[in-house]
Amino acid sequence: MPHDEGVSKGARQDAPRRRGRRPGGTDTRAALVDAARAVFIEQGYDGATVRAIAARAEVDAAMVNHWFGGKEGLFAEAVLKLPFNPQDVVERLLAGDVTDLGQRIVRTFLTVWDTTGGGVFAALMRSITSHELAANTLRDFLVKNIVERVLSPLVDDDLDFRATLVASQLVGMGMVRYVVRFEPFASADIDTVVVAVAPTLQRYITGTVR
Amino acid sequence: MPHDEGVSKGARQDAPRRRGRRPGGTDTRAALVDAARAVFIEQGYDGATVRAIAARAEVDAAMVNHWFGGKEGLFAEAVLKLPFNPQDVVERLLAGDVTDLGQRIVRTFLTVWDTTGGGVFAALMRSITSHELAANTLRDFLVKNIVERVLSPLVDDDLDFRATLVASQLVGMGMVRYVVRFEPFASADIDTVVVAVAPTLQRYITGTVR
Repeated sequence: MPHDEGVSKGARQDAPRRRGRRPGGTDTRAALVDAARAVFIEQGYDGATVRAIAARAEVDAAMVNHWFGGKEGLFAEAVLKLPFNPQDVVERLLAGDVTDLGQRIVRTFLTVWDTTGGGVFAALMRSITSHELAANTLRDFLVKNIVERVLSPLVDDDLDFRATLVASQLVGMGMVRYVVRFEPFASADIDTVVVAVAPTLQRYITGTVR
Repeated sequence: MPHDEGVSKGARQDAPRRRGRRPGGTDTRAALVDAARAVFIEQGYDGATVRAIAARAEVDAAMVNHWFGGKEGLFAEAVLKLPFNPQDVVERLLAGDVTDLGQRIVRTFLTVWDTTGGGVFAALMRSITSHELAANTLRDFLVKNIVERVLSPLVDDDLDFRATLVASQLVGMGMVRYVVRFEPFASADIDTVVVAVAPTLQRYITGTVR
């Protein structure tokens, strides 16, 4: 589904004229995903520009906003193959007090990935461990789109160390629940996991870690 | 290096007569590793017997104790390709008070894997995520050789849930430090990580998790 109909209309007027095709439909969307995958792998997250991706796909750059809401949405779908838009997740995490942030992160993480049956998380881990997805590309994406937006307004000191501590518990939670499926953790209901794990994240975000 | 010279001598007297070769040397060792990999994959950790592995390798079963100190040492080397013997790790963890166990686990985990540069940990994660290594085989191994020996004498309630919580933080720590190498966590010295993460493991082992 397009992210913004206003952008869509403007984009259609500026549609590429070179080959007279891809006026904004689903073939444009698929072409952007293919082009994005190639450009992100070549240039990394920071190096890849919307302009370069659109040029490779031979469509207007406005189509990126139209279909994906921006560069991060395109990366999330084309490379990480995430089943959600990171911006929605960030908004959900920011809606509340910092003293409950650990709980919200665990609950959101589990809700999002449980919905996909964990197969998408397992594929992402496979992609990272097999070097199909460069670690620094993933890190740049996470730092820009999750850490900076969610943690930096709330955390005074040691932001990077705290963020990697949070990442360590989240990645491990996903590995045990969705990849190796150790019981009873893999089948525990979300509330049970939140009670057990949220205090860990809360300490990593606002507590003593040095 | 053989684990027990006494076992070694006895084993040599009982060496297989079928084909008159492999009297206990390094070719025997390599044959056992190859045979073990096949049998563990076919039968799982619990199903595989030392007798079946030795038969497949066409050597005497005593050679397994001689070279690997037992079934778990052979699994650790042949399948997990661990650069250490799990029994040594268990002994190190058990040497001390339960109130410091979180610290000892984090320190031992980092010391062991830092020594290999993390490449071995990354290979293990790749093997798990690509389904080359069945998750339940890994779980049976960990439960029998780490959890039951280290945690069950110390933990009264919720042993399995606590053990999977510990696993979640350890696996995530390894992923962030050795696979995706997020900084500053990846390069932080061991003491820094121990201070940050040990309280998490300690709570998972002896604290409130429900």
